[in-house]
Amino acid sequence: METIIKISCKDEKGLVHKITGVLFEQKVNVTQTNEFVVEDSERFFMRVSFTGKCDEILVKQQILNLLPSDASIEMIPPKKKKVVVMVTKEHHCLGDLLIKNQFQDLPFEILAVIGNHEVLKSLCDQFAVPFHWVPAENLSREDHELQVCKLIDSYQPDLIVLAKYMRILTPNFSSKYVGKLINIHHSFLPAFIGANPYVQAFERGVKIIGATAHFVTDDLDEGPIICQEVVPVNHTLTAKEMSKAGKEVEKIVLSKALKLVLEDRVFIHQNKTILFE
Amino acid sequence: METIIKISCKDEKGLVHKITGVLFEQKVNVTQTNEFVVEDSERFFMRVSFTGKCDEILVKQQILNLLPSDASIEMIPPKKKKVVVMVTKEHHCLGDLLIKNQFQDLPFEILAVIGNHEVLKSLCDQFAVPFHWVPAENLSREDHELQVCKLIDSYQPDLIVLAKYMRILTPNFSSKYVGKLINIHHSFLPAFIGANPYVQAFERGVKIIGATAHFVTDDLDEGPIICQEVVPVNHTLTAKEMSKAGKEVEKIVLSKALKLVLEDRVFIHQNKTILFE
Amino acid sequence: METIIKISCKDEKGLVHKITGVLFEQKVNVTQTNEFVVEDSERFFMRVSFTGKCDEILVKQQILNLLPSDASIEMIPPKKKKVVVMVTKEHHCLGDLLIKNQFQDLPFEILAVIGNHEVLKSLCDQFAVPFHWVPAENLSREDHELQVCKLIDSYQPDLIVLAKYMRILTPNFSSKYVGKLINIHHSFLPAFIGANPYVQAFERGVKIIGATAHFVTDDLDEGPIICQEVVPVNHTLTAKEMSKAGKEVEKIVLSKALKLVLEDRVFIHQNKTILFE
Amino acid sequence: METIIKISCKDEKGLVHKITGVLFEQKVNVTQTNEFVVEDSERFFMRVSFTGKCDEILVKQQILNLLPSDASIEMIPPKKKKVVVMVTKEHHCLGDLLIKNQFQDLPFEILAVIGNHEVLKSLCDQFAVPFHWVPAENLSREDHELQVCKLIDSYQPDLIVLAKYMRILTPNFSSKYVGKLINIHHSFLPAFIGANPYVQAFERGVKIIGATAHFVTDDLDEGPIICQEVVPVNHTLTAKEMSKAGKEVEKIVLSKALKLVLEDRVFIHQNKTILFE
Repeated sequence: METIIKISCKDEKGLVHKITGVLFEQKVNVTQTNEFVVEDSERFFMRVSFTGKCDEILVKQQILNLLPSDASIEMIPPKKKKVVVMVTKEHHCLGDLLIKNQFQDLPFEILAVIGNHEVLKSLCDQFAVPFHWVPAENLSREDHELQVCKLIDSYQPDLIVLAKYMRILTPNFSSKYVGKLINIHHSFLPAFIGANPYVQAFERGVKIIGATAHFVTDDLDEGPIICQEVVPVNHTLTAKEMSKAGKEVEKIVLSKALKLVLEDRVFIHQNKTILFE
Repeated sequence: METIIKISCKDEKGLVHKITGVLFEQKVNVTQTNEFVVEDSERFFMRVSFTGKCDEILVKQQILNLLPSDASIEMIPPKKKKVVVMVTKEHHCLGDLLIKNQFQDLPFEILAVIGNHEVLKSLCDQFAVPFHWVPAENLSREDHELQVCKLIDSYQPDLIVLAKYMRILTPNFSSKYVGKLINIHHSFLPAFIGANPYVQAFERGVKIIGATAHFVTDDLDEGPIICQEVVPVNHTLTAKEMSKAGKEVEKIVLSKALKLVLEDRVFIHQNKTILFE
Repeated sequence: METIIKISCKDEKGLVHKITGVLFEQKVNVTQTNEFVVEDSERFFMRVSFTGKCDEILVKQQILNLLPSDASIEMIPPKKKKVVVMVTKEHHCLGDLLIKNQFQDLPFEILAVIGNHEVLKSLCDQFAVPFHWVPAENLSREDHELQVCKLIDSYQPDLIVLAKYMRILTPNFSSKYVGKLINIHHSFLPAFIGANPYVQAFERGVKIIGATAHFVTDDLDEGPIICQEVVPVNHTLTAKEMSKAGKEVEKIVLSKALKLVLEDRVFIHQNKTILFE
Repeated sequence: METIIKISCKDEKGLVHKITGVLFEQKVNVTQTNEFVVEDSERFFMRVSFTGKCDEILVKQQILNLLPSDASIEMIPPKKKKVVVMVTKEHHCLGDLLIKNQFQDLPFEILAVIGNHEVLKSLCDQFAVPFHWVPAENLSREDHELQVCKLIDSYQPDLIVLAKYMRILTPNFSSKYVGKLINIHHSFLPAFIGANPYVQAFERGVKIIGATAHFVTDDLDEGPIICQEVVPVNHTLTAKEMSKAGKEVEKIVLSKALKLVLEDRVFIHQNKTILFE
């Protein structure tokens, strides 16, 4: 398996030359490099994957020494990411993730599932994945989130996946897990922000519906988009049937976005993502 | 070629049986029938195509006699529809339409092109299609539209196609040509309503862009949608490159929507379309 | 829920009028009708769905009396279809079906799963669906199929789904279950017939891969196609990664085809399907 | 505009470091770099684009000195490629190219169109692009091609585009223009190789049809694929209507492939392409 280096800094000439120079000296086997410069903001992004042994702390420091002072660098060891999944009542995304977890179709390990309703407990039981029911009734939003956060933190996950978690999160919550929180929204954002997107889509009479996987930020449905896909619909579908057709896309898009994030192929820059596929 | 009957009325039992009975008696050859009932509004829609001779005025009346009193019925003879195209500066949709007009790829005849700028005149000249330049400078919106309407009306078109006509139309204009006015909007509606959708799409960081062909109503970009299609994009595209990628979709979507309308396959119901493909 | 009538006969004038006349007299509530005439073979196909009570045996006979002598008619009561699934080692299609079975996402009931390998037993156990292991080792193809058929017949299923069953079936087997046997082939047929389609696709350097759900006939991979979908690929994917990307499409296509068949929306005519979506 | 360097050689460690080192020393502004290593054949491919002045012959030589002995390198100046288009009777691809040529939608210049029939002459006349009619009647295949080659060579094009040229080419012809000959095939290769793919698709009852742009080699329809796209079809379409639906995809795919080739983003390796998009 591969070690990944993720670098982000102010753009300047010679960055690729310098960075690859360190790796060349170390005699590691570079398997893939990707670079991109965001023109407006003159920001440089690079992902390098390599196999072979090296002193990773040293290499990281050597590269850092060659970069502009604002550089950030991550050296990511080749191991599966730990994931906590949050759900409400819908089973389709969770079911897909549980199967992929069991058969190792994605490089992740689902440590636990947290639900604000209890209905999906039995599905988790079938897969022997711990399910925690944290009901929100009679609790303030803050108190409910406190309980959820405590649970999440007890697992120290690399990533939290909102697999149709239908409660709005406070800015407190999203800012606590910035860059670690992935949501699947059941519309083609920015179309149909907010509640009941399929009802909105039905009423507008659109001919295509979609789903969007994105990082969660303070602004509801406004975070950096990772993946989007669509499916054609027509006048014969009710809002409910649109919702059903949409579920298939939702689970595909979530899974696709998750794969990219788990493989460290996603950079967040301002409110957008850069994907090195 | 086929004659088309389009029927719309309050739903009740036996409509299909009664309507097809008239045609059976007339011994015409029914080539296709499509029906749909909008559940919420209990509205029945039917399209019948047939070949063979019959007294069309009589048949229309006989069917009408069997339908609920609110019924509307059209008997559409098999001939090409007459079209006026309106443009501003972009050539991609117009170019596609002019080629399809010349080679009879669609069942229409472009009678004339009207532009608020002059740049596309030479393209129309190449295809020997009349081009009318109606500059908007130093004119009130109303006065400009008056000139445009006068020109349009002189051609008595069945359909007016806004092939990237970049001026906002007054409710006066759109209500004058209700059901006859097709626009191509350069976004996946309802996302990115209004100006510069590709800049909006770029700034939001979407992973798919699209185009929407729709009937024009008083509300800008809010009319009944006929067709939508999308194309994937990513972080490497500038707003300008997104716009370029979008143009290919725009011309496809417009052409596809136009084909459906020209073949009388589209019903407008409230703010949606029913397509009998 | 709805009762479905499926009719197929030689085309002649007045069929729709006659058939809908019987239903009108019965005062049932027709919810949808679809008709299609295959031009070359002058064959008429119709699907009618209705709610409301009637003497179904009588109605069926009354309609039959009005049709050409070669007509076939089915009156299908509103109940879930019974399904037996056959698998080998791959879990992705089976997993998706088991979840959809448990949560009633499709109008079917999986009675049992039969595998020529044992690896998917535990997955079936998790969903409390009977799994039968019928190893093929040391058995002639005929003897193995005999055992499989005996098992299938003990369940009297309406449909048998080959969810990545990787053994070639004898004409004996396929002709025994004609019209009841659905397969998912891991390529965009007729491209890459036979073994290892992803390796073939990789070697040919295609830019799109796909999957095909089809009815099984005597000719391997040549039966009537129900659904096909594709996914873009590029030079960076190995054959193995193409296979992985393909699995997502396979399960979608199989599920989509199954939905159509379970809702009695599919007619087989010669070597093609007619889909009333 | 950008200068492009295309490099291909045996893979070894440090290539990216060495190549970017030369450009760093020259102080040119590297705008994009892409690399890929074909694992089986251990072949390295790189595309670099840069702006800014340098002694290009020197730079090319300096890079070459650092590469394995089997390396090939191209230094491509920022200018439009010259194209000759070959056609038969169909206008859709040619029409699209002529419009894109006139409005500079693609970085090319169409020097001339050669047709084995005369029907598209008037279309070329409308765009003031020279059309040469080279009838094949009463000529051996070799003699006809001799005339065509003579014409082509008189224009010294960078690229020859077969925009629905419906005659089979001899190996002589294709080997004369290896890597310079792009064809649009009206099917989703390798499905429906050879004549009348839409009739084949209709008869097989496929649910998706497509088009393939590829480089032409000795083997008919077997050259390296550049782009492929598809469009859904169903039982209601005749072979002729499939062909019509396919034409829209054909022109899009050809245009997309052409853009990639014109921007020097395509490498041919054995019988595949590597696309740096």
